Amino acid sequence: MASTQYAVFIGCIVDTPVLGQLRVRTNGTLGVDRSTGRIIGVAEQSELSPAELVSSWVGHTVSSETVESISLTTDQFLMPGLIDTHTHAPQFAFLGIGHDLPLMDWLNKYTFKHESEFKDTDLARRFYKDVIARIVRNGVTFAAYYGTIHLESNRVLAQTICQIGQRAYVGKVCMDANSPAYYSESTEDSLRDTEEFIKQVIGDQVDETQQRLVTPIITPRFVPSCSRECLEGLGTLAEKYQLPIQSHLCENPSEIEFATSCFPECPTYAHIYHKYGLLNSRTIMAHCVHLSDSEIALMRESKASVSHCPNSNFSLSSGIADIRRFIDEGIPVGLGTDVGGGYTPSILDAMRMAAAASRALIAFKRDNGGSKDKPLEAAEALFLATQGGARVMGMDEQLGSLDANKLFDAIVIDMNAPNSPMPSIDATPAVRDADSPYEAWRLRIEQFVFLADDRNISRVYVGGKLIHSI
Amino acid sequence: MASTQYAVFIGCIVDTPVLGQLRVRTNGTLGVDRSTGRIIGVAEQSELSPAELVSSWVGHTVSSETVESISLTTDQFLMPGLIDTHTHAPQFAFLGIGHDLPLMDWLNKYTFKHESEFKDTDLARRFYKDVIARIVRNGVTFAAYYGTIHLESNRVLAQTICQIGQRAYVGKVCMDANSPAYYSESTEDSLRDTEEFIKQVIGDQVDETQQRLVTPIITPRFVPSCSRECLEGLGTLAEKYQLPIQSHLCENPSEIEFATSCFPECPTYAHIYHKYGLLNSRTIMAHCVHLSDSEIALMRESKASVSHCPNSNFSLSSGIADIRRFIDEGIPVGLGTDVGGGYTPSILDAMRMAAAASRALIAFKRDNGGSKDKPLEAAEALFLATQGGARVMGMDEQLGSLDANKLFDAIVIDMNAPNSPMPSIDATPAVRDADSPYEAWRLRIEQFVFLADDRNISRVYVGGKLIHSI
Ligand SMILES: [Zn+2]
Ligand SMILES: [Zn+2]
Repeated sequence: MASTQYAVFIGCIVDTPVLGQLRVRTNGTLGVDRSTGRIIGVAEQSELSPAELVSSWVGHTVSSETVESISLTTDQFLMPGLIDTHTHAPQFAFLGIGHDLPLMDWLNKYTFKHESEFKDTDLARRFYKDVIARIVRNGVTFAAYYGTIHLESNRVLAQTICQIGQRAYVGKVCMDANSPAYYSESTEDSLRDTEEFIKQVIGDQVDETQQRLVTPIITPRFVPSCSRECLEGLGTLAEKYQLPIQSHLCENPSEIEFATSCFPECPTYAHIYHKYGLLNSRTIMAHCVHLSDSEIALMRESKASVSHCPNSNFSLSSGIADIRRFIDEGIPVGLGTDVGGGYTPSILDAMRMAAAASRALIAFKRDNGGSKDKPLEAAEALFLATQGGARVMGMDEQLGSLDANKLFDAIVIDMNAPNSPMPSIDATPAVRDADSPYEAWRLRIEQFVFLADDRNISRVYVGGKLIHSI
Repeated sequence: MASTQYAVFIGCIVDTPVLGQLRVRTNGTLGVDRSTGRIIGVAEQSELSPAELVSSWVGHTVSSETVESISLTTDQFLMPGLIDTHTHAPQFAFLGIGHDLPLMDWLNKYTFKHESEFKDTDLARRFYKDVIARIVRNGVTFAAYYGTIHLESNRVLAQTICQIGQRAYVGKVCMDANSPAYYSESTEDSLRDTEEFIKQVIGDQVDETQQRLVTPIITPRFVPSCSRECLEGLGTLAEKYQLPIQSHLCENPSEIEFATSCFPECPTYAHIYHKYGLLNSRTIMAHCVHLSDSEIALMRESKASVSHCPNSNFSLSSGIADIRRFIDEGIPVGLGTDVGGGYTPSILDAMRMAAAASRALIAFKRDNGGSKDKPLEAAEALFLATQGGARVMGMDEQLGSLDANKLFDAIVIDMNAPNSPMPSIDATPAVRDADSPYEAWRLRIEQFVFLADDRNISRVYVGGKLIHSI
């Protein structure tokens, strides 16, 4: 089975190639070439056999023995894999814990303490395996991870992700300033280990497959934890290796004050990253709850992206990022779980929390005489979790929707999984009464966004390879 | 087994008898008399045998054959059942659907349309069984339900709840004004059917057990849907039968405007209910997002309660209720799911959404120069879902915590259930590193509040009877 070169999925195919557009191909067929991990074609309501379809897509006759047909049930659909644009792998050590503490207490009592323990590489080996499996079970095919400051444990994290088969950006966290003595590094160590980590991660993968699953990402923790020399060195490395960059920006007022007080020569927090070559089209900035107008303009001009982490922003009383504005201004937005600021690795939760954040902001604006925005719809939340996330990761031409030539990072959803939180269609007359099959699917997708959990994620594929199934 | 008169639970017992106080009896023993459905005693670290303990609690020697011992694992704990102080059973027909519509469109397209279908009693019979089972699976031992306007289908709802064994308030919804022609009733029908429903529900249960599981509740849908005569009649019935009362209050600005414009003789929305004898110590008012100071004062003086429905308030862009203020002013507060305004029947979700709402409000107040409140802690959310909810339902002396003489409405939590969203203790070094066994439990309870789902709810008891297990 798994050894056939081609796989053809037959059933409902759902994606959001454009913000606000829910594409439902109810009688779809999608072909994958397992040797490249890419989608070779998608058809609607075809009369052709799977082998005939594959032949038409690849441009030469393909024997039916090389094609596996995978038929979905009427309760299943195929959709792009979920993308987590911001999470911290070591912070699963205190998942769901400590959110009633003020931010700095929380950092010291939990974050720094537990991250520092990853100087023990054996801990990383035991711990990260469970973490990545948990994230994959939630349908996340691609994630941007923060590790810790430790070279070896970060290498273990990258290797673990490769072994499990998830796609990822992995960052060695840099912090050479304003950090506790037991969890900080010299500027020299920070930059040397970052470059060494880049070389290791790239080197570790050369012989494995033609696809590189894990890419290193330049990761200053945030402005207050980095010296000028560190930021400058990281900007140089980002340019030298043309790597993605991730950090935190304008999460809460006291952090902003701290950051800008460390760099009084820069007009705003965002300008600090910009000054050191860390704010460009390859940059993912988490949170952006309290961006000033000039920072929004700088983000837009720099073509940097926002990782919206609503669960974390709620949990840590940070406030609500105005992602409708970012979207309207053309700034790419994706979703992040920000574990452990957020309490769950579920991107389904991130979609729901993004919807809640949007609606809370609308109510606050309304009650304070402000403008009336459009609430974030289910299809828009789905876009942020897939194609929008792909854009944030700089991979929107490679994945994020189910189109020919894209990498096949996808999940199979079973809405009728035993005991799942999604009610059956029989229990949902609103779906039964829908005006059209498309409308019925639209409503079911809305239920999926608001109700589903990992029980509904029955298969997870990355680069054409099945990496999880239930 | 189940026929023994007494059951003794041995293991960790968790409850919140007072707001903010998390009581963890790590080596607890709790006895239940199945003939009364009540807790006969609770002990910590007792050296006595279960039969000796029961004997000490009941005051005479009890043979060990009449006592069943139920030992919990070290990953399990016993806690009070979850209480949903506000939900709409028929609205499961469109669970998770339509929240991007404006409120009035949503009401017409989904709510009124689907509620009206319950004139078909057979639909009610098929539908409500699935709904109540779904709610019970989420650990809800006691709920306040809105039905529809239909006498017979409401009776089916009450009977279904009795058969499944859940504790409930069930209300025949009254709407004789400003409602669509296909879903409204005359004032006379509304009042006559309400009284008939009261008599039926009370009558249906006289022969069953000495415990009455289902109590009728007076249910004007909300002010705009009721005439003066209807409200007056309902106030009279509430007084005559000394019944609880439920309705909606100050959910969003346009609803408030509509309600007060219908009753220009009353100074505020809350005063309308008060005028007609519908705002007293037996009243549960859902939402209360936009109460004025004088309404808060009236609520407090009337000893009425608030059902806080954060998921619904987020979903419908209503705003955020300032429950910290209500609590500080001495107004009882419980949690409600408000399905289908809220998208899930999970009270665990309601706890998390209450925490999110609290933190969002803190951030908005902070960013607008306001006061700094204390964020809602996990233990406080747990209180709102148990003892706080019991208070709202007027049953705080009967249930809500695990104390002697209270009804045994309880759930057994298994934190190590297969594939559940709660990580193991091994995967959570923060718990392993806790300073004391109490602190470790406190952190695990916090993880339970933020991460658990129905997979972790392994047994559900109401009045001493096991009504669900996995
Ligand atoms: Zn973060
Ligand atoms: Zn309601």
